Amino acid sequence: MGEYEVTRRNRVRQIREYARYDTEAVHGVLDAGLVSHVGFVQDGQPYVIPMIYGREGEVLYLHGASKARIVKLLGSGAPVCVNVTLLDGIVAARSAFNSSMNYRSAVVFGTGRLIEDEEESLHALEVITEHALSGRWQELRAPLEREIAMTGVIAVAIESASAKISDDPPEDEEDDYATRIWAGVVPITTTLGEPVADGRVPSGVSMSRSIAALEGRRL
Amino acid sequence: MGEYEVTRRNRVRQIREYARYDTEAVHGVLDAGLVSHVGFVQDGQPYVIPMIYGREGEVLYLHGASKARIVKLLGSGAPVCVNVTLLDGIVAARSAFNSSMNYRSAVVFGTGRLIEDEEESLHALEVITEHALSGRWQELRAPLEREIAMTGVIAVAIESASAKISDDPPEDEEDDYATRIWAGVVPITTTLGEPVADGRVPSGVSMSRSIAALEGRRL
Repeated sequence: MGEYEVTRRNRVRQIREYARYDTEAVHGVLDAGLVSHVGFVQDGQPYVIPMIYGREGEVLYLHGASKARIVKLLGSGAPVCVNVTLLDGIVAARSAFNSSMNYRSAVVFGTGRLIEDEEESLHALEVITEHALSGRWQELRAPLEREIAMTGVIAVAIESASAKISDDPPEDEEDDYATRIWAGVVPITTTLGEPVADGRVPSGVSMSRSIAALEGRRL
Repeated sequence: MGEYEVTRRNRVRQIREYARYDTEAVHGVLDAGLVSHVGFVQDGQPYVIPMIYGREGEVLYLHGASKARIVKLLGSGAPVCVNVTLLDGIVAARSAFNSSMNYRSAVVFGTGRLIEDEEESLHALEVITEHALSGRWQELRAPLEREIAMTGVIAVAIESASAKISDDPPEDEEDDYATRIWAGVVPITTTLGEPVADGRVPSGVSMSRSIAALEGRRL
């Protein structure tokens, strides 16, 4: 199990007891999420864009339209910050000050690289597709040349990362425990539900294995 | 109903048919979410941090430890981008290229301002608390002086914003509809579950009304 070096960039500053710098914790959050929030800078202005992604080892793959601003910027080696956060509960304490959330969060720092090689690009698209829909890639036809041309795929080598994971009941001021106020956690669960076929699935075609396997999965 | 002016900063660049610039759509997403992803720049490096928040009119309130980096940076008027995204489904199309997600997303641009006035600060903290736990503020004791001193509250006036909302079945290439592959949407639902009291609620104390009202709520 590896550790990310703690530097100015990835150091968790608040509530440090929740900080994790091991690859297992960071990868665990990245692999559990479905959407990432990608931060980049253009002319001094920060932007945060939700993007799907896939991870393989110490590389995150992102994709978009090949002519999209974010693909051009990240593809030219701009610094990028990627955050994946999953909410697990509202921590309702006996004071507003001690109320908070339970969550799993990972932050990754790196620089983007536009993938130019078609084989590498297809591999990255497979990793992204498989992240949300494991087994789906093999069920689908191969991407068409024009689809590949229209898609810009970015590799972000993870240079630095950290995670922050909290899963605790409220921690209140000692005086507040004497008050007659209810306190605890309201769980938040994100679940994949029953798949809904679109109107053009031919009769006799059953649900794909990759899709059937998802039902009831919790993020 | 207002509209945000479409400028270089907030213009939706990809899949423009999902773009919304009306305040109703943007506020709707902001009010539905529980966590925001806050993007800022320090020494050219982008950072994305998950933060809870509250909205009142055209102001977003954020908070953190008064000595936290993000509070100091945003409090000094740094440009900020706040994104709130809720996932509603995995769109499993007949090709990887046409597969995507259904989601509600809002992006807000503004500049931070540290709230110095105690009354305004308390009001903002009430808005933040009430966002996740409506009715909770009145059930809790008033914040203590030292709690107020330890908390930095940031007001972000919404200068520009847009939303992007998709809720569609797959849209496939005409040729692909002839293939015998299942396609459709895997719904993603995020739900508040049964509240769990911590171990120190005195016997005879029933669940607070603000908490009981949450059970089963979908984000």
